[in-house]
Amino acid sequence: MPLMPVTDSMFLLVETREHPMHVGGLQLFRKPEGADGNYLRDLRRSMLDSDNMRSVFRRRPSRPVNTLGHVSWSTDAELELDYHFRHSALPQPGRIRELLELTSRWHSTLLDRHRPLWETHLIEGLQDGRFAVYTKVHHALMDGVSALRHLQGTLSDDPDDLDCPPPWGTRQATSTHNGKAPSSFLETAGKTFGQVAGIAPAAAKVAREAFREHTLTLPMQAPKTMLNVPIGGARRFAAQSWSLDRVKAIATAAGVSRNDVVLAMCSGALRDYLIEQSALPDAPLIAMVPVSLRRKADAGEASGNNIGALLCNLGTDLTDPALRLAAVHTSMRNGKKLFSELTPLQTLLLSGVNVAQLGVSPLPGVVNNTRPPFNLVISNVPGPRKQMYWNGATLDGIYPASVLLDGQALNITLTSNGDNLDFGITGCRRSVPHLQRILTHLDTALAELEGASGVR
Amino acid sequence: MPLMPVTDSMFLLVETREHPMHVGGLQLFRKPEGADGNYLRDLRRSMLDSDNMRSVFRRRPSRPVNTLGHVSWSTDAELELDYHFRHSALPQPGRIRELLELTSRWHSTLLDRHRPLWETHLIEGLQDGRFAVYTKVHHALMDGVSALRHLQGTLSDDPDDLDCPPPWGTRQATSTHNGKAPSSFLETAGKTFGQVAGIAPAAAKVAREAFREHTLTLPMQAPKTMLNVPIGGARRFAAQSWSLDRVKAIATAAGVSRNDVVLAMCSGALRDYLIEQSALPDAPLIAMVPVSLRRKADAGEASGNNIGALLCNLGTDLTDPALRLAAVHTSMRNGKKLFSELTPLQTLLLSGVNVAQLGVSPLPGVVNNTRPPFNLVISNVPGPRKQMYWNGATLDGIYPASVLLDGQALNITLTSNGDNLDFGITGCRRSVPHLQRILTHLDTALAELEGASGVR
Repeated sequence: MPLMPVTDSMFLLVETREHPMHVGGLQLFRKPEGADGNYLRDLRRSMLDSDNMRSVFRRRPSRPVNTLGHVSWSTDAELELDYHFRHSALPQPGRIRELLELTSRWHSTLLDRHRPLWETHLIEGLQDGRFAVYTKVHHALMDGVSALRHLQGTLSDDPDDLDCPPPWGTRQATSTHNGKAPSSFLETAGKTFGQVAGIAPAAAKVAREAFREHTLTLPMQAPKTMLNVPIGGARRFAAQSWSLDRVKAIATAAGVSRNDVVLAMCSGALRDYLIEQSALPDAPLIAMVPVSLRRKADAGEASGNNIGALLCNLGTDLTDPALRLAAVHTSMRNGKKLFSELTPLQTLLLSGVNVAQLGVSPLPGVVNNTRPPFNLVISNVPGPRKQMYWNGATLDGIYPASVLLDGQALNITLTSNGDNLDFGITGCRRSVPHLQRILTHLDTALAELEGASGVR
Repeated sequence: MPLMPVTDSMFLLVETREHPMHVGGLQLFRKPEGADGNYLRDLRRSMLDSDNMRSVFRRRPSRPVNTLGHVSWSTDAELELDYHFRHSALPQPGRIRELLELTSRWHSTLLDRHRPLWETHLIEGLQDGRFAVYTKVHHALMDGVSALRHLQGTLSDDPDDLDCPPPWGTRQATSTHNGKAPSSFLETAGKTFGQVAGIAPAAAKVAREAFREHTLTLPMQAPKTMLNVPIGGARRFAAQSWSLDRVKAIATAAGVSRNDVVLAMCSGALRDYLIEQSALPDAPLIAMVPVSLRRKADAGEASGNNIGALLCNLGTDLTDPALRLAAVHTSMRNGKKLFSELTPLQTLLLSGVNVAQLGVSPLPGVVNNTRPPFNLVISNVPGPRKQMYWNGATLDGIYPASVLLDGQALNITLTSNGDNLDFGITGCRRSVPHLQRILTHLDTALAELEGASGVR
């Protein structure tokens, strides 16, 4: 029974029924040419028959009930694949809307701690003939970035490659005995931090306190908004793709980075959404933006432990989309690092997308009485540059679903995927009403940026 | 903010992620003659538009997080009906098997305490053209018997009656302002016991201790079996109907009650199942059987507070089905009352199906080290004698899904419904493998009893 690193067990310890600690990914596929009526049945059967499983997907907590102190992993010898891999269907009329509603429900329920902490749904019934796969993994197994990379690793850029593993499998024989992806920065953080802090509650406490102290010296002050409130257990998930070329064109015309354009899209969408909700604050929203600090040369191999976080002024107080883009660009260029006053170890631990959020979480009263350190996380995760396939099926989109916490009721995570940017928006179902409106506003914001930068 | 009776709040306090405290009902319907392709869509729309809602379905805990001491109810002013009333579909091939698998999943997940504690699924995609409705209600709102009666109360014996309320509605205008059904014996128990014990944790403690003491003086000793183990969070649900006439014929031929025949069916099925699992104990299984102590004259009006519990020797050690039936009959006739040594108040509180189960639950060590007071609950709830309809749709079956607890990994609850007996079997997904085999064994056991009593 190997002991868990503190960065694993932390996520089990802080999880409550209102704060499920899993990340998710929704993949949308087009069936191969000539697929017959039995295609999904055969696909499901072949996946059930496969014995390809990354060892991390066999792990379950040895003591499922919350305990203080160390927690260890067990390997589930009798894993019931039929339980983890589920067959599901959309009700009529089988639009993306029904798919997102179902994904929202799945993303709201807790994983069973008596079993390995993951579920995969194979989803039929889309009216356009496509199918979808939703995979949910506990944060104690993988952080969101690692989970996305893991899913991407099961795909192929060859439409004729019919040897792709199931979503819980692996291509690399060597990693069968290595639970975590080498790219997981949390793993590294866990090992290091474990040496220092020793036990999980202490780790969580240090993380919180480090964060709270430093809210006093943050370089920017985030306004209190409807997004920074205590949250309930139910989630809403929305997702959509936009053409990368459109974003590129704006970036080139305006002389900014693509990520600046993405952030300005989010800014415009959040502004419109908050106006619609009569909840736009006077001060600009502040986003926490995880950024890779890797040098170009390392791009192929994600070393993982050079990820930092910037605070970005989204300029949501500005009416002109061009001025908002300029505000974002300036803010990102100036690179005010959130954790500049912390030690390298603290930076490493706190700069993970979701680890950082722990800082603002479960201390009673904190959410209501203090200003948030930032208003939301906007995370842009690099993905494959080519069109990807899964056993002949064409990947149309891969949409990340994230963890929320008290005080952080909305998360926007996107990933590049071939010619597209795939946005996944996760919100507290009660605090963020009509979440799907943000998709419409993102679309509007992109068009406005095109207009403002003269590309359309 | 009315304070909850202790018998309500008790179910919130003892609920954990491994022990969800909700009851469920799965209803199976045939569409009316001439229903067109839009039937379910129109049905769903009319239910969403209905403002008929029993007030109990608007209640949510004022403080969703577990707290000691009193808990009060709030009324949810902004109830999001679209959240509670869900549209779902079966994957291909849309057999009863897929319906039960989906029901198993729904019965395994916790209700969101930030909202009124119920969910209803309208389910399409059955290959035979029928549709289903699964409704899940927290035990803090209704016990299982009350929930079944509530659902039955939304039906009509007139196929032309198109004014049936939705599953969360009511026919009686008066009960709109009265959360609980008058028939809820728990309500009565709660009021009475509340006066004595005052606060919820004390109530739970008294219930447990009273129960444990009296396990020493139980009239029969139940063997330790695979059904009496700590349970996990996931559930498996199985359901099937059998003809009431077949049971009646055996009862008449053998000179026993219908309930004796039902218990003997369960006995034969449990014996076969445990043999299959190489887990049949030498000593006979003991079932806890809730029975109504009402006189015939009261049958129309359920007064509720005259429900007791018998311990029934199921005779699972006997190979001959006729001898098993005789053993059950003798055991039930001798009427060894489980709680005969308790005060009337204790009897009342402890004799509820699930309240009684609390007694064997969450004290660490109890499950592993002591013999169970009984092996499982088998509950036979009287239902409508006529064929029932719901807005023109024919009710084919109504199957109860129950609460499980540590030490009680299996529950069989059945209800009479027109010409049928509808069995719902709820099991811990890990402890009770191949639960659906019990359906096959019930079928075999019924046929064997027919053979043994000479009716076939």
